[in-house]
Amino acid sequence: MGDTYDVIVIGGGISGLSAAKLLAEAGLNVIVLEAQNRVGGRTHTIRNKEVQYVDVGGAYVGPTQNRLLRMAKELGIETYKVYLKGHLIQHTKGKSYKFIGAVPLPYNPLVFLDYNNLMRTMDQWGSEIPADSPWKAPHAKDWDNMSMKEFIHKVCWTNAARSFAELFVNLVVTAETQQVSTLWFLWYVKICGGTTRIYSTENGGQERKFVGGSGQISEKIMARLQDRVKLERPVVRLDQAGEVVIVETLNHEVYQSKFVISAIPPVLTTKIHFNPELPSLRNQLIHRLPMGSVIKCMVYYKEAFWRKMGYCGCLMIEDEDTPIGFTLDDTKPDGSAPAIIGFILSRKASLFANLSKEERKRKICEYYAKVMGTKEALHPVHYEEKDWCKEQYSGGCYTAYFPPGIMTQFGSVIREPVGKIYFAGTETATQWSGYMEGAIEAGERAAREVMCKMGLIREDQIWVPEPESVDVPAFPITTTFLERNLPSAQGLLRFIGYTTFFATAAAGIMAIKKGYLSVKCNFD
Amino acid sequence: MGDTYDVIVIGGGISGLSAAKLLAEAGLNVIVLEAQNRVGGRTHTIRNKEVQYVDVGGAYVGPTQNRLLRMAKELGIETYKVYLKGHLIQHTKGKSYKFIGAVPLPYNPLVFLDYNNLMRTMDQWGSEIPADSPWKAPHAKDWDNMSMKEFIHKVCWTNAARSFAELFVNLVVTAETQQVSTLWFLWYVKICGGTTRIYSTENGGQERKFVGGSGQISEKIMARLQDRVKLERPVVRLDQAGEVVIVETLNHEVYQSKFVISAIPPVLTTKIHFNPELPSLRNQLIHRLPMGSVIKCMVYYKEAFWRKMGYCGCLMIEDEDTPIGFTLDDTKPDGSAPAIIGFILSRKASLFANLSKEERKRKICEYYAKVMGTKEALHPVHYEEKDWCKEQYSGGCYTAYFPPGIMTQFGSVIREPVGKIYFAGTETATQWSGYMEGAIEAGERAAREVMCKMGLIREDQIWVPEPESVDVPAFPITTTFLERNLPSAQGLLRFIGYTTFFATAAAGIMAIKKGYLSVKCNFD
Repeated sequence: MGDTYDVIVIGGGISGLSAAKLLAEAGLNVIVLEAQNRVGGRTHTIRNKEVQYVDVGGAYVGPTQNRLLRMAKELGIETYKVYLKGHLIQHTKGKSYKFIGAVPLPYNPLVFLDYNNLMRTMDQWGSEIPADSPWKAPHAKDWDNMSMKEFIHKVCWTNAARSFAELFVNLVVTAETQQVSTLWFLWYVKICGGTTRIYSTENGGQERKFVGGSGQISEKIMARLQDRVKLERPVVRLDQAGEVVIVETLNHEVYQSKFVISAIPPVLTTKIHFNPELPSLRNQLIHRLPMGSVIKCMVYYKEAFWRKMGYCGCLMIEDEDTPIGFTLDDTKPDGSAPAIIGFILSRKASLFANLSKEERKRKICEYYAKVMGTKEALHPVHYEEKDWCKEQYSGGCYTAYFPPGIMTQFGSVIREPVGKIYFAGTETATQWSGYMEGAIEAGERAAREVMCKMGLIREDQIWVPEPESVDVPAFPITTTFLERNLPSAQGLLRFIGYTTFFATAAAGIMAIKKGYLSVKCNFD
Repeated sequence: MGDTYDVIVIGGGISGLSAAKLLAEAGLNVIVLEAQNRVGGRTHTIRNKEVQYVDVGGAYVGPTQNRLLRMAKELGIETYKVYLKGHLIQHTKGKSYKFIGAVPLPYNPLVFLDYNNLMRTMDQWGSEIPADSPWKAPHAKDWDNMSMKEFIHKVCWTNAARSFAELFVNLVVTAETQQVSTLWFLWYVKICGGTTRIYSTENGGQERKFVGGSGQISEKIMARLQDRVKLERPVVRLDQAGEVVIVETLNHEVYQSKFVISAIPPVLTTKIHFNPELPSLRNQLIHRLPMGSVIKCMVYYKEAFWRKMGYCGCLMIEDEDTPIGFTLDDTKPDGSAPAIIGFILSRKASLFANLSKEERKRKICEYYAKVMGTKEALHPVHYEEKDWCKEQYSGGCYTAYFPPGIMTQFGSVIREPVGKIYFAGTETATQWSGYMEGAIEAGERAAREVMCKMGLIREDQIWVPEPESVDVPAFPITTTFLERNLPSAQGLLRFIGYTTFFATAAAGIMAIKKGYLSVKCNFD
């Protein structure tokens, strides 16, 4: 049996390693058991000659992700801004439209009002949802029993807004609108700072990447923890019937500890055989939180031809036939290894899973050529991809989603300890859940829960607010008077009638041109 | 390592044991690995002095469940009819209403039309769904993307019908209307023979129970298989990277075989560490099929007082505060051990999980007293219950459900073999899926798939239709001209107007009284 550890951490992703780092720094005797032959979990940096390095999993970092920025700084990892010069492209109904800003600005004034009302409504509803207990929102049951498909149908009036809203959901949580609870989705967006923050590149969640790759965060923490991180140790058994907790791995090693921190996605705890059995609600919760579906695809070219054409490389593609829904420029900060990173999202990940890697690459390039209107896209020099859906020890990416009706019936036990087991993992976070930031918040909070239980800190020291990063400060996201007060498309038509409508819409367009209406963030 | 078996069956429920029985009878070398210290899975017969025997899991058998009837007969297990003399009670909005038949017959003619239209629409849509490939239904995507909550909202016009429809879903699949896909639910009802067959006691799914308990089916198959059934062997590892399949159990035993039949619920296969990893779609499917939620509660009384009052013991309770949604008489066929069996369904199972056993018993008896209007219900002599939600090796009961959007995106791989692994379990059945009947169909089909792969039978011998039981024949379920042709409540009001409506409704009531409208099955 050997030593009794203070804490066994299950899972060597960013959350588990953040927990272990904090505990080790506090002088506690901790080990990390990781199922795979590498740390990082849903972050993974691949290195080779063609790509230098590339993040095939979680990669982006932006303002308000202060824990992640602090951790990276401490580990000596620098960030760079994602390339954003030039136009973005929205491709819808077979046509490409250039735009700038976070969200396309439709020419049709009715569609404009509908977009504005959609984003505004999501943020307004979100403002009523408590970050740490969404199941307590005033309308929790109604919103939880409604899928995002129903929400969109209720709020959007134009097909254009519905199509955009669907892509927004697919991209943000890698699931279908009918599969996810409105309560959960609006909570998820809210705790990332709202629709503009979550969706934006500049001043938003996708502003930056890490020089050298996000995988370094886990690798560098592992280097500090040294042999306290054990790789290729999937946990198969957890017995807390006795004084100490007994944890057994697939290769028959048996560890014992005073406490356990589970830092893996909820559904992956089903891989552990528990004694005694988990309580009813938790036993059923962990079967009800599937991981999203995404294949990340990086296409490398001889040069960044899109930059010459005045495009930043960000494409939003609304089309049933395309594999890729969203792209960003993924060229290295020094201009080397020109690349576009694209996401095969949700239903598309299932649909295109059975193609060969070559076929996926070909289809993707064909679409890039079509959307950007250039044959240069047809001639990649290299291709990398990662299908997260087949990863046994991730289950999918980016994160777990709550189907309709689960949050209010089961959600309240998500962070509730079970005996000596405490729960980390980005799914248990209250800011940027689903992101690396949330992973650190959750890992450090779970570590402090254990330290509190051991009498090392007070209960009011468990939840620690994070000071803002001085290197990457957040610019406030403001809304204009008109954004707040313009009618919705259907509201306008319903109450004012058509004649007045066109006049108002024209005024709206004028207002945009004159700058009274913000066209949101990333101008260059 | 020892011998190489022909087939390892994972799971000693009815499905796995049916598979093993067939394989053993064909002379193949088979073993069954069961996680628990008993066989039966979601069927479990408890024996003690007070109850004699009682099924705390799957229990009922009825006409058209021909495989189950054949298996029971072969094993020498007899059936008896559930007591049905007297009135059923529907308790809604705080009041109890007596009725006879499968479904309450409301006095309000508008509600009557609405009930009729609800059941009719479910059966009509169901008729368009292929039993063996629901994802290929003409409207598969639309119906799959709609929850049963949306379906009910669309089809039902009266609150009474909506409330009844909700209880119907809760009872039939132990999940909430917003949690389940319409495509899946209507498929589920259809492959049980439709709304009347699935919901009825007489001539329906709940017509009979087994003398001595349903647990005997597994116990008697185990007795025949002898030491080929290994208890307390949870499977933790399955490696099919080499020539033979290697299966390891939690107690470090290693078995090897040519083929494996997985006869456990899809979500429980997550407890196995696979090498190589499962394909994308299967890896994600198994995280998306949660098991329903139910606590089964048996209250024993000195005498069957409800019979004296003219009640059969079947209560349908629509009330947010009650734990129990549905009951049946559970007295032994000779009149001994008078009892009522009640189901704490879905959200109620979560809500009442944290009470003590004593508190649940008290609350249940209080409601029985209220609904039947007698204080005799307050004085039970014994109480048994089983919370399936906390069972690690069942995950819940009765069966897995498909949330919205899962069937069409992932469902098609439900029975698709993965290398040398074949899939049994009632969830993979095409008739009475979720029931003991489906378990046998699936187990025997998977056994024949393996036998076909081994060259022992032809491919067209895999799916075998079952002849009808001579002892328990099915009476056809017929609908009357009026049931088929009466307008829906909203249809009537919309197209005919109020005046005509009341005349028609009155005609409907007259028709019921004169017998032109069937009041469905179980008259006595």
